[in-house]
Amino acid sequence: MKVGKDVYLAFSPERIDPGNTVYTVTNTPKVVGGMTETCTEVASCFYRQVISDVVPVSSPQAAEMTKLLENTFRSVNIALVNEVALMCDRLGIDVWEVIDAAATKPFGFMPFYPGPGLGGHCIPVDPHYLAWKLRTLNFNSRFIELASEITRSMPAYVVAKVGDALNQFEKNFKGSSILVLGVTYKPDVRDIRESPAIDIIEMLKSKGADVSYHDPYVDRFSVNDLDMTSVALDEGRVGRSDCVVITTNHSSFDYEWIVKTAKCVVDTRNATKGVQAGLEKVVKL
Amino acid sequence: MKVGKDVYLAFSPERIDPGNTVYTVTNTPKVVGGMTETCTEVASCFYRQVISDVVPVSSPQAAEMTKLLENTFRSVNIALVNEVALMCDRLGIDVWEVIDAAATKPFGFMPFYPGPGLGGHCIPVDPHYLAWKLRTLNFNSRFIELASEITRSMPAYVVAKVGDALNQFEKNFKGSSILVLGVTYKPDVRDIRESPAIDIIEMLKSKGADVSYHDPYVDRFSVNDLDMTSVALDEGRVGRSDCVVITTNHSSFDYEWIVKTAKCVVDTRNATKGVQAGLEKVVKL
Repeated sequence: MKVGKDVYLAFSPERIDPGNTVYTVTNTPKVVGGMTETCTEVASCFYRQVISDVVPVSSPQAAEMTKLLENTFRSVNIALVNEVALMCDRLGIDVWEVIDAAATKPFGFMPFYPGPGLGGHCIPVDPHYLAWKLRTLNFNSRFIELASEITRSMPAYVVAKVGDALNQFEKNFKGSSILVLGVTYKPDVRDIRESPAIDIIEMLKSKGADVSYHDPYVDRFSVNDLDMTSVALDEGRVGRSDCVVITTNHSSFDYEWIVKTAKCVVDTRNATKGVQAGLEKVVKL
Repeated sequence: MKVGKDVYLAFSPERIDPGNTVYTVTNTPKVVGGMTETCTEVASCFYRQVISDVVPVSSPQAAEMTKLLENTFRSVNIALVNEVALMCDRLGIDVWEVIDAAATKPFGFMPFYPGPGLGGHCIPVDPHYLAWKLRTLNFNSRFIELASEITRSMPAYVVAKVGDALNQFEKNFKGSSILVLGVTYKPDVRDIRESPAIDIIEMLKSKGADVSYHDPYVDRFSVNDLDMTSVALDEGRVGRSDCVVITTNHSSFDYEWIVKTAKCVVDTRNATKGVQAGLEKVVKL
């Protein structure tokens, strides 16, 4: 059996944004690279049955590199804006205001937002395949390594912010009750793979805090040594907690009510952007 | 004299893309941050006389940070794609094909292109103000430093590609004549500030090559020890040169003719993208 004659072999990387209702599988252009020109043609023909736009490239390697560039671009830009958030913190500037202002530039800019870390099964993972491959060729993928380093440090930064918030009330982690809102890696999905909320919960627990969580999408989860069940999001729980940490900005949360009810809030997602009252209780990233 | 009462003080950063005919000063939103709310209002009122969209922010610091974020975003993304170009070179993949394929992703991606380095008076310079300020606060701006390091290494990479090109003909730099096309930092402008072409010319000369240049926008320039005059772009000059290096992709160049006439071409800008014949003579970044 010979490839390109008896069998036709091509590669097409996944290109999907979970939760995106505008761009789904059928209207997202599909990159296809075959071992031979005929392979590319046969595979493209197959995909054209269901996908409106097929983009042929010259090889399976070029197709895979396309996906790796897309994901590395996101990984690096998320890490960059996380570093900018750390800078703004030092400078006493609101990073969210700066990003919104920069996003008014009609050319050459694309907004990314800081957060408690990176999750999902693509962005935190795929660039490392590329870095590994390049290491075998004696090439150090410095942007991928730096992006990973900075983003992996974000959960610890969030925990430090929680410590600062508790400090206002002359409290520390030990003996404090902390409610974490949202454990999925992004809003309005059920996926907790690589979710930074899990790291944050682990760190808070290791410092002796009494941690509970609520997530409308995740009734229960079990990761590493953690085995937790979502608690009810009621006035007693929110009001009694020493600190409420917003780790995922699910759209179903009533942020106005959360801020009104909580003693203090650490908001890692700018989820309280629209909230009017009680903002003095909110610590943002 | 008191700021906000007797005098009104505000800051608004420059936001301009030289050569851009779609977005000019009047239709590019202008970010304004005053020392007080009245300062912001007075300055916004002033700008609104000529600029269609004014974006007020809470302070002069936030306004400056907006510009620094915009320019750092560009600096980092250009450096990232330069590193991806180096990776693709190791992997034997055409980086330009990969970028074009990635650019078909309708969300979450913005294409940047590799090149011989970074020029102009903003992108290579501004992020370093920010890095300097943060250093005084004991914070190391790692993305800015890495971006600068990678981009500053590109001229040497281009020179190495020229060496590889000459090597095909059993030649080296010494005794070879090299024609550099374009010394401005980007196409169709007259600006040579921080232009990487100058670094490339200096390196080629220091290795003993006989270097000349042609640029329809720059008849003559004098930078550091260099004092050069643009030569004519004729068949004799192009055909006689051992290597032609395209450093700026001016739209007035006839790339088809250049490739046809030259012995070999190092194309740092994918300027020969549309050329059909003679591509075996072209070495791309």
